[in-house]
Amino acid sequence: MNNVDIPWRRAVVSVDQFSRSDIDEIFALAARLSVGRTMPLTGKSIVNLFYEPSTRTSSSFYAAMTKLGGSVIPINEVNYSSVTKGESLEDTIRTLECYADALVLRHYDEDATERAVSVASVPIINAGNGAGEHPTQALLDLYTISKERGHIDGLTVTLMGDLKHGRTVHSLVKLLRMYDVKVQFVSPPELSLPRPYLVKEDTEYTDLEAVIDDTDILYVTRVQKERLSDSVAIDFSYAVTQSDMDRAKDEMVLMHPLPRVGEIPSELDSDPRAAYFRQMKYGLHVRMALLVSMIGRD
Amino acid sequence: MNNVDIPWRRAVVSVDQFSRSDIDEIFALAARLSVGRTMPLTGKSIVNLFYEPSTRTSSSFYAAMTKLGGSVIPINEVNYSSVTKGESLEDTIRTLECYADALVLRHYDEDATERAVSVASVPIINAGNGAGEHPTQALLDLYTISKERGHIDGLTVTLMGDLKHGRTVHSLVKLLRMYDVKVQFVSPPELSLPRPYLVKEDTEYTDLEAVIDDTDILYVTRVQKERLSDSVAIDFSYAVTQSDMDRAKDEMVLMHPLPRVGEIPSELDSDPRAAYFRQMKYGLHVRMALLVSMIGRD
Amino acid sequence: MNNVDIPWRRAVVSVDQFSRSDIDEIFALAARLSVGRTMPLTGKSIVNLFYEPSTRTSSSFYAAMTKLGGSVIPINEVNYSSVTKGESLEDTIRTLECYADALVLRHYDEDATERAVSVASVPIINAGNGAGEHPTQALLDLYTISKERGHIDGLTVTLMGDLKHGRTVHSLVKLLRMYDVKVQFVSPPELSLPRPYLVKEDTEYTDLEAVIDDTDILYVTRVQKERLSDSVAIDFSYAVTQSDMDRAKDEMVLMHPLPRVGEIPSELDSDPRAAYFRQMKYGLHVRMALLVSMIGRD
Repeated sequence: MNNVDIPWRRAVVSVDQFSRSDIDEIFALAARLSVGRTMPLTGKSIVNLFYEPSTRTSSSFYAAMTKLGGSVIPINEVNYSSVTKGESLEDTIRTLECYADALVLRHYDEDATERAVSVASVPIINAGNGAGEHPTQALLDLYTISKERGHIDGLTVTLMGDLKHGRTVHSLVKLLRMYDVKVQFVSPPELSLPRPYLVKEDTEYTDLEAVIDDTDILYVTRVQKERLSDSVAIDFSYAVTQSDMDRAKDEMVLMHPLPRVGEIPSELDSDPRAAYFRQMKYGLHVRMALLVSMIGRD
Repeated sequence: MNNVDIPWRRAVVSVDQFSRSDIDEIFALAARLSVGRTMPLTGKSIVNLFYEPSTRTSSSFYAAMTKLGGSVIPINEVNYSSVTKGESLEDTIRTLECYADALVLRHYDEDATERAVSVASVPIINAGNGAGEHPTQALLDLYTISKERGHIDGLTVTLMGDLKHGRTVHSLVKLLRMYDVKVQFVSPPELSLPRPYLVKEDTEYTDLEAVIDDTDILYVTRVQKERLSDSVAIDFSYAVTQSDMDRAKDEMVLMHPLPRVGEIPSELDSDPRAAYFRQMKYGLHVRMALLVSMIGRD
Repeated sequence: MNNVDIPWRRAVVSVDQFSRSDIDEIFALAARLSVGRTMPLTGKSIVNLFYEPSTRTSSSFYAAMTKLGGSVIPINEVNYSSVTKGESLEDTIRTLECYADALVLRHYDEDATERAVSVASVPIINAGNGAGEHPTQALLDLYTISKERGHIDGLTVTLMGDLKHGRTVHSLVKLLRMYDVKVQFVSPPELSLPRPYLVKEDTEYTDLEAVIDDTDILYVTRVQKERLSDSVAIDFSYAVTQSDMDRAKDEMVLMHPLPRVGEIPSELDSDPRAAYFRQMKYGLHVRMALLVSMIGRD
């Protein structure tokens, strides 16, 4: 079964599973839950099964679940735990699903989510599968755009940084294709977006200056120095500066999936356009909406 | 005080503490709780104090407690934590009992449970004490038999694998003695059941073929290769095969405490007689019943 | 902004923030919550952000929060987690505060609390900042005195052990200054109380015998052998003995922050004056009171 054919309420595997109306529904629920006091998942529980550490993502799901009244069984660094002593991923999944209403899975293997879904009888949420996808991150990024600007269609979105390796960027680009959005890319040539993700209308740049003026959303990701040859590393610096912000639109939204390591100096944090911490909060709401959609009583 | 004299509601230390009527009561409660929506332990909490890793067992107690409305303070790998810096087990127990209504203790020392019980003023549950016992595992195994077959008396139970080292097998055998059950053992001679656990009526085999036909319950455990001499390892293979299943009764129940490492191939998972994942679920219900019996308001 | 100017309901940083009437209020609330069944923090959550392991303190906050109906996101050994991969403490705080109503922070750097408070928009509780303070420990020590004796004014308090390095002792001494209390110190000369903490009325000793008779509260802390020169270590033994207890008042209260490593032999545990395990329980109640004061709806 192709990922896209799995109903997302049964397993969130890839952004390819979502239609615009699915997204509208999730975002509307996220907004309602963000102001609500109801605890619709009281008595429900999930397992956070993290084969790779990711405190940020696991904490976000943990908080989402407990805010809804549910509980979380946290299993971190599962490689060192007795669960996996010689045990197949499939057996681990079938064991842990006895204890919970859904499993949130972060794994270093790209095929892990698919293997989990093939044996699981409870919903699975892909919280990152190796070089594969991180669909809840892409959804929260899109939700941030929607909340900060009130709409998505008609915007000019600039993605800057390491566009080659980031699964988050790839997933977000796929989602943006569903909207009437102009997409621009800024990266060192060595770290440009893989060709399969590009469409004819896209424009690519090596410098933020060329596009900062007309950008509505500036989405910045890390450029990991070790991925650049020395000569390139010297010529480009993919950090946003105060001068960039001075030139940018008043209503521009500056985003980053965090953690950052210099791409956005903390001096810019007080700029009202800096949305990266609000982005964390929006992520909580999107994950709450997914959990309620997948395991809520209705 | 001998273990058997400790009321099990105060501390679950050994299977020797349970009478048939105790077991009836626990199993009846487990069945009721498995379908219930009540949360009788709301406001209660336990500490999961694991000196050895055992994600499977700790997750099971975690899930049992949270499904009942209670909360769990997870303390894993306690040896590396500040609790034990130079501190005696007794002091650790007396400290942590201030924070909870019961303690679930897994420890590598056989005398740890006894030492904990001697100082604790809250109920203690032995979740495995070195080469000693793992009483909640034996209870859940028995409960699985009871649920899968509707009764225990009159059955023929075959235990296969490493019968020498497994504390789970030893505890289960003790419980089975309380019922009118025919017990058969299949193992390499080097890994046969220790003599003290044997009774006159028992029969021992080195090959499953001899007994598969009349077996009602086939309980398989791991044979760890490193425990067999080379010649033995070559001659015997204690894995269940499709051909064994073809010969077995239609209503036979195939059990395994998990994790498995080849004793039961995954091809057999779809056989309705394969009960090892249901066994996990039954375990959850038995632990819920124990928790409610020990710390519920009544 | 000086610590003392931060309202303690916004951030508990130092004992210097508390007035006698603040303390009266906290202690009254602690006493009420210790007998209550209400769960005023249902739907609320905290993050336990521990850069240093401290199972005792983190468990105490965990239990306090869950007893009040709230939930806890436990982040231990954060240095090894993805949260901090190249990320500043400030960014970690701003990320995690999105997921919770308050942060409990244990950090090895003395300035960590201050840095956290400077960026946080949710309440922060200092659970130990390096050589700095551990204010909730000092408050629970004072609460123990108050509960065990019914009052604080008029008592003679003897502090014994390593008075030089213990942040707990330093904070407790500051709090005791707010009351009409006679304070006596017993330590090897090398480990005496730093001069800034001493006042004219204090008396210092090198032997418990000199002061045991008139002591109302005997507060013992660890003397770490490696901090004593050999000659001193040989001469002094800062352990309480049965003979000390025989000479002490009938209503004396024997306290210790735990863990102990020989300063109080376990033989004294059954003496009704031994209050160190009750002290753990009082700590739970004080932390419940702080949490309700800081994040309760009121």
